[in-house]
Amino acid sequence: MEPYLLTATECLEKFKDGSLTVEAYARSLLSRIEQRDPVVKAWTYLDPAYVIEQAKALDQIPPAKRGPLHGVSIAVKDVMYTKRMPTQHNSPIYKGDSPEVDAGSVTVLKNAGALLIGKSATTEFASAKNGPPTCNPHDPTRTPGGSSSGSGAAVGDFQAAIGLGTQTGGSTIRPGSFNGVYSMKLTWNSVTREGHKIYSLTLDTTGFFARSVDDLNLLADVFALADDETSKQEAFNIKGAKFALLRTMAWPDAGPGTIAAMDTAAEILRQHGAEVESIELPPEFDNMPEWHRIIMDTEARPVFLPEYRIAKEKLQPFIVGHVENSTNISRAAQLAAFDGIAALRPLIDKIAGSYAAIITPSVVDEAPTGQAHTGSPAFNIIWTALHTPVVNVPGFKGENGMPIGLSLVAPRFHDRHLLTVCKAVGTIFEAEGGWKRQCHI
Amino acid sequence: MEPYLLTATECLEKFKDGSLTVEAYARSLLSRIEQRDPVVKAWTYLDPAYVIEQAKALDQIPPAKRGPLHGVSIAVKDVMYTKRMPTQHNSPIYKGDSPEVDAGSVTVLKNAGALLIGKSATTEFASAKNGPPTCNPHDPTRTPGGSSSGSGAAVGDFQAAIGLGTQTGGSTIRPGSFNGVYSMKLTWNSVTREGHKIYSLTLDTTGFFARSVDDLNLLADVFALADDETSKQEAFNIKGAKFALLRTMAWPDAGPGTIAAMDTAAEILRQHGAEVESIELPPEFDNMPEWHRIIMDTEARPVFLPEYRIAKEKLQPFIVGHVENSTNISRAAQLAAFDGIAALRPLIDKIAGSYAAIITPSVVDEAPTGQAHTGSPAFNIIWTALHTPVVNVPGFKGENGMPIGLSLVAPRFHDRHLLTVCKAVGTIFEAEGGWKRQCHI
Repeated sequence: MEPYLLTATECLEKFKDGSLTVEAYARSLLSRIEQRDPVVKAWTYLDPAYVIEQAKALDQIPPAKRGPLHGVSIAVKDVMYTKRMPTQHNSPIYKGDSPEVDAGSVTVLKNAGALLIGKSATTEFASAKNGPPTCNPHDPTRTPGGSSSGSGAAVGDFQAAIGLGTQTGGSTIRPGSFNGVYSMKLTWNSVTREGHKIYSLTLDTTGFFARSVDDLNLLADVFALADDETSKQEAFNIKGAKFALLRTMAWPDAGPGTIAAMDTAAEILRQHGAEVESIELPPEFDNMPEWHRIIMDTEARPVFLPEYRIAKEKLQPFIVGHVENSTNISRAAQLAAFDGIAALRPLIDKIAGSYAAIITPSVVDEAPTGQAHTGSPAFNIIWTALHTPVVNVPGFKGENGMPIGLSLVAPRFHDRHLLTVCKAVGTIFEAEGGWKRQCHI
Repeated sequence: MEPYLLTATECLEKFKDGSLTVEAYARSLLSRIEQRDPVVKAWTYLDPAYVIEQAKALDQIPPAKRGPLHGVSIAVKDVMYTKRMPTQHNSPIYKGDSPEVDAGSVTVLKNAGALLIGKSATTEFASAKNGPPTCNPHDPTRTPGGSSSGSGAAVGDFQAAIGLGTQTGGSTIRPGSFNGVYSMKLTWNSVTREGHKIYSLTLDTTGFFARSVDDLNLLADVFALADDETSKQEAFNIKGAKFALLRTMAWPDAGPGTIAAMDTAAEILRQHGAEVESIELPPEFDNMPEWHRIIMDTEARPVFLPEYRIAKEKLQPFIVGHVENSTNISRAAQLAAFDGIAALRPLIDKIAGSYAAIITPSVVDEAPTGQAHTGSPAFNIIWTALHTPVVNVPGFKGENGMPIGLSLVAPRFHDRHLLTVCKAVGTIFEAEGGWKRQCHI
C-alpha cells in the first residue's frame, strides 16, 4: 500500500515497528500531491524541501523520545500563523505575509511531532463566501465546501492525514461532508484559538479533519480534551443506545441526498438495535439562525477595522459591510442575540444529554457544482452558536454519487463521549450507508 | 511647558497649529523617560532611535493627510504583537521573541498616526500575579498595579500620553487608580483582541490609559466605538442626573481610602445637584467572584497548553496549575459559571441603564507597598465578567497621599455615554476630590 493512503493511526504503527520512515512517508505524500494538485488545488503554500527537512529531523529522533503525532502529516488552514510558512488568509492584504510565530494549535502539533505539509486553501478570512480555486477531489467540477476548503479536500484526497480547520458558520462540518471525511467542530474554546484569524469571538471554533475516528481521538489526546465522565467512553454499544433524530428549522432546505441519508441512518441504527427517536427543538430555538447572523456580522465589525483602515479597497464588499454595519444592526439587537443564544446553551445540553447523540444533517445535500459558492451552512450554524461538539460522520451518498455525512452532536465538553459514539456509528454508516471511500487518480 | 506634560488632545492642537513638531515632542518624552526610567521602570523595550525615526516620518506627512492620533505617544502592553519591537509577555519562554506582526489594535493606532514609544511592562502573560519591577511613579516603594503595570505607570508619570492595556481580572482599572490616571475597560469585544495574548476568551478585554477623558474619547473615535443612542452624549448635566452608589460583595475588603472616596464622591455629586442612590446587587450576583475565578482558571487551561508542552519548567506554578486543572474544576462547574454569568448580563444592563452611571470602587485602597503583589482585583472582576464598560476616574487620595479612583459603570455598548458622564464627573472629582496630579522629578 502506498504510504499516502495511511491514516494517522496507521502510519504511527508503521513508524513504530520500523517498517516506514517519516521521510519515505513524506516523499509518498509529496508525489501524491504533485500528481493531484493540478486538479484539487488544496494548497496555498507548500515547500517540498521544508517537508523533507522536517521528515529527516523527525527520523533522527530516537524512538523513546518521539511524540504522539510523530511524523503524522497535517494540513494547516491558511488563517493560522505558522513559522517558516506565510499566512495569507486568501486576502490580497496579506499576500506573502509571514509573521514568524506559530498559532497555539500549531505549537501543540509540532511539539507532538507532526509533519506540517503546508498551508491549505481558505475562503477570504474564513468567511462564508468567495471560495478559493480548490476543487472537490471526488468531482473536480464541484466545491469542496468552505471555509476550510483545502484542509477538507487534502484529507479527502489522501494528500494529508489530518487537517486543521476553523468553523464560524459551517466551515469544518460542511467540507467534512462534501469531501467524505470525518470532521469535528470541538466544544467552543476547548482548543486554543491563539494565532487563528478572528472572525467572531463567540462563534469561531477550532476543527479537525481526518479519515478515521481513531485519528480524531489521537488529536483529542494531543490537545488534552477531557470530559468530566470518562466511564461512558469505555463501553458504548449501539445496541440499546438511544439516538435523537433532529431535522431542525433548516429542514425545508434539505435536498434528496440529505433526506435519504437521515432515513437510511435511522434504519441502520435500528437494525443494529438502537432506539431512534425523532425530536424537534423547542420553539425558543426558532431565532437561532437570525441570532447567528447578527452575532457574526456584529462581532466582525471591530475585528476587520484594522484591515478596513489600512486597505479597505482590498476587502470584499461584505467585509466592508461588516465594518460599516451596512445592515444597521443595533447594539440592542446584538445583545439580544448574544444573550438569547447564551440562555439556550444549557437547554441544548440537557436535550442532547438524554441521548447517545443527536443526529442531524451536516449539509443541505451533496456538494454543488462550481467553486465560488462553497455551499449552505444552514444545518451548522446553530451548533456553532450553541458551542456543542459536532462530528461529521461520512457514509452516505447523493444522487450524483458524491459523499454525504451526518452530524452527531453531544452536550458541551462531551467531546470524548461523542468520539466514542462516532467510532461505533461511523463503522456501520461507512459499511452500510452506501458511499465507499475511493482514492481518485 | 515641557511637551511631555501634554495630554494627547493638547499635543494634537500644537501639532496642528505648528507650534510643536512630533520630533521635538518625541525628544522631550525620551528625555523624560531617560530621567525617570531608573525609578519607574515602566518599559520592557524602548529603542529611542525607532521613536525618533517614527517622529521624523510623521513630521513629513502633509497636514491634510495626518491621522487623528498624529504624533500621539503610546505605550503598548507587552502582551500585544508589534512589528519592529519584541513581544515577551514577561515570560522567559518568549525572551527576545519578535514576531513580525502587529496586533489589530496596534494597526489601528499606527494607521491613525500614533507614535509608538515602546513596550510596557506586564505581569507574566497579564496574569494576576508576579508583578514586573515597575514602580509607582507617585511613590516608588509601591506597586503601580497590574497586570498593565507599565502602561499605567508610564501614563501616570508623563512618559506617554496614552497606554494600551488589557483586563481579565482588574488589570486596567486597578493600575488606573493606583497611578492616578483615567483608565477604561471597554465593552467586551468592542475593540479587536487580534494579536493580544489570550488568557480567557470570555474575560479578556482591551483597555486604555490616559490623563484626560478627552483623550479617551479620541481613542473611542479611532476605534469606531458607537452606542445606539448618541443624543444623550451631547447634553449631560450632573445637575439632575441620577447615580447609583454600589459597594458590592467586595465591600468588606475596602480600606479607609476607598471608603472615604465613596463618601466624598457622593457628597460632591450631591453638592452639584445630582441624585445619589445607594443600591445593592440582587442576591443572584453573589456567585460572581467564584464564577469569575472558575472561568479564568478553566479558560486558561487550553490557552497555556502550548507553553506547557514546550517549556513547562519556565511557567509559574499557578499557570502550570491552570493547564493541569490543579483545583479540580469540573466541566459542569465551568459551564455553570459560564451560563450563570451570561444570565446576569442583561440584568446588570437593566440596573445600570436606570442611572447616569453606577459608581463603585476601583480598588480596595491606595497602592500597597512592594512590587511583587500588584493589588487586589476584588472590585473589578465582576464588571470584567459582566462585559460592561468601566472607567476609573481619579481625584481622591488615600491615607498616604496616594491616588485613589472610583469606577463608573454603564450598560454594555454604552461606552460613549459613559465617557460623556465621566467627562463631567471627572472634572469635579479632580477639582474637589482631594488628590492633585503631580509630575514627579
